[in-house]
Amino acid sequence: MQLLKERIIKDGIIKDNNIIMVDSFLNHQLDIKLLNEIGREFYERFKDKNITKILTIEASGIAIAAIAAQYFDVNVLFAKKTLSTNLDDNTYESKVYSYTKNETYTVRVAKKFLNENDRVLIIDDFLANGKALEGLIDIVFQANAEVEGIGIVIEKGFQEGGENIRKKGFNLESLVIVDEVKDGYVIFREWYCLNFSKMIICYYKW
Amino acid sequence: MQLLKERIIKDGIIKDNNIIMVDSFLNHQLDIKLLNEIGREFYERFKDKNITKILTIEASGIAIAAIAAQYFDVNVLFAKKTLSTNLDDNTYESKVYSYTKNETYTVRVAKKFLNENDRVLIIDDFLANGKALEGLIDIVFQANAEVEGIGIVIEKGFQEGGENIRKKGFNLESLVIVDEVKDGYVIFREWYCLNFSKMIICYYKW
Repeated sequence: MQLLKERIIKDGIIKDNNIIMVDSFLNHQLDIKLLNEIGREFYERFKDKNITKILTIEASGIAIAAIAAQYFDVNVLFAKKTLSTNLDDNTYESKVYSYTKNETYTVRVAKKFLNENDRVLIIDDFLANGKALEGLIDIVFQANAEVEGIGIVIEKGFQEGGENIRKKGFNLESLVIVDEVKDGYVIFREWYCLNFSKMIICYYKW
Repeated sequence: MQLLKERIIKDGIIKDNNIIMVDSFLNHQLDIKLLNEIGREFYERFKDKNITKILTIEASGIAIAAIAAQYFDVNVLFAKKTLSTNLDDNTYESKVYSYTKNETYTVRVAKKFLNENDRVLIIDDFLANGKALEGLIDIVFQANAEVEGIGIVIEKGFQEGGENIRKKGFNLESLVIVDEVKDGYVIFREWYCLNFSKMIICYYKW
């Protein structure tokens, strides 16, 4: 998605030489116009799948899923990472290991909101090692529902999550795949390399 | 907001005799059509305030804020409850005491996304004791920005948060105020009492 690449180049920041900070438009401050374009793009890619529900995970996936859901005209369900009084006692649960925090947490979805008739589109902002995504897939399987598609905004192609998920045969669509982040610039999967926050020589390859 | 009251009556569930569960449409599963009506209603109530940014808090406020932001044509900023690599180091912070969890947590917003020119609309799903809301107000003050309005979907009128916030002079608009929850039914502020999950005699008073 060209618009998103341009936005990452324009407003993304590289932190600690390997983290892509997109907090100005995607996961802290939210550019709702951009989210609308992202939602429209997900719809274009999955509109033939007869999606009945969009599943995401708190917190950064929620806004993207909610805006996208307007195009699909379906409800959103977001998996919770913590127990709360707002959550039904009867839940599907899956354990997720977090590399960044070096701990395992549990994602939960109330059973009453997911069943064998659901054709689910899973949406999230980032895909890196894929552990959270595997937890969501596990939950859909527990409900005997179908994973009809997985829509990711930014995939880190240099981590194994995307490859593992595709190997299993899932219909995974990432709007942008970043294959490398180093020395203040980013290389996208399609070899469209550009400057990133600083002036760096760019090259095109498509 | 009549539509919302009817929905609470139709799909809300009372748990432990005092918790209003609206997880089927507001804070776990999200009815995006209803959220659009909620967003439109917030716009009607605050459209003259020249809002420049909507501030909310993860996780349940995010979808409501994102959908509402489409009407205001502004960005959303959501305060984070946990530290993450996606958060800038330079943040406004405020301590929030949680009665339900009996612990204090910190809400954070990156300083670069809020400044003295911002006219902020704060949006959240629930208002009970108001501690989280006070944390958000504190953050807006730290940024020398203005709180132009506070939009709450459901206020628990039997807890002190709403009264405290109004006493301080804030322009607080709650789409629904619940004054009492007991014995399986709910009494709204406008004395529009109705059956709740079970068949109970209803009475109107407006």
